[in-house]
Amino acid sequence: MDQSALSPDVNRRACPSRLVLEHVTSRWGVLVLAALLERSYRFGELRRRIEGVSEKMLAQTLRTLERDGFVHRDALPAIPPRVDYSLTDLGREAAERVWGLARWTEQRLDAVLAARDAYDEDHAHS
Amino acid sequence: MDQSALSPDVNRRACPSRLVLEHVTSRWGVLVLAALLERSYRFGELRRRIEGVSEKMLAQTLRTLERDGFVHRDALPAIPPRVDYSLTDLGREAAERVWGLARWTEQRLDAVLAARDAYDEDHAHS
Repeated sequence: MDQSALSPDVNRRACPSRLVLEHVTSRWGVLVLAALLERSYRFGELRRRIEGVSEKMLAQTLRTLERDGFVHRDALPAIPPRVDYSLTDLGREAAERVWGLARWTEQRLDAVLAARDAYDEDHAHS
Repeated sequence: MDQSALSPDVNRRACPSRLVLEHVTSRWGVLVLAALLERSYRFGELRRRIEGVSEKMLAQTLRTLERDGFVHRDALPAIPPRVDYSLTDLGREAAERVWGLARWTEQRLDAVLAARDAYDEDHAHS
């Protein structure tokens, strides 16, 4: 029996690991995971932390990450009702990797912008 | 003068680093970067390596990654024409981080699937 055929492989179309990868690399998933690595957040705080996310997209992203076991949702018995979002242990593993990638893009932004200028220059003259 | 306002920050809507992060975490960008960490690939080989990517999406992804300075495109004077794609030094830095995230999702897939079952069970009874 070919065990390799049973191992998760993101390059296979039907492998469920590809979908998990899409969740942790989704536009808002990346920013939610990176933010929750700082501390736990309430919904409204998170929306302010991540500029431009709509209420609907943030709710959907949090639900997906909660279902995958990355985010813990804690509804506190307060008035007004208060819901805290934090990372699970599994979510912390994902968030550390995602955070590293996010910080890297910030640190290397100048190199990327220089590469783009060179590319556009090349392709304008060709 | 507030220098912090000038530092790249993926949480700011208009910061160009957010767009770079979206390129390296795009559905096919992730898989292209991870594949090119193995070795250089020709277009057709890459299409077979990454199951399910269309010709159009692969071409568009490669062009975006080339423009950002992550991928080097080498057109060889052969018959039939041959084009090799490989990582630049900058692309290798991104690819290592992306690859780590992709391998992690494969390794932790069982934990994610178990979390999903638990979530669905909870929400079916509530």
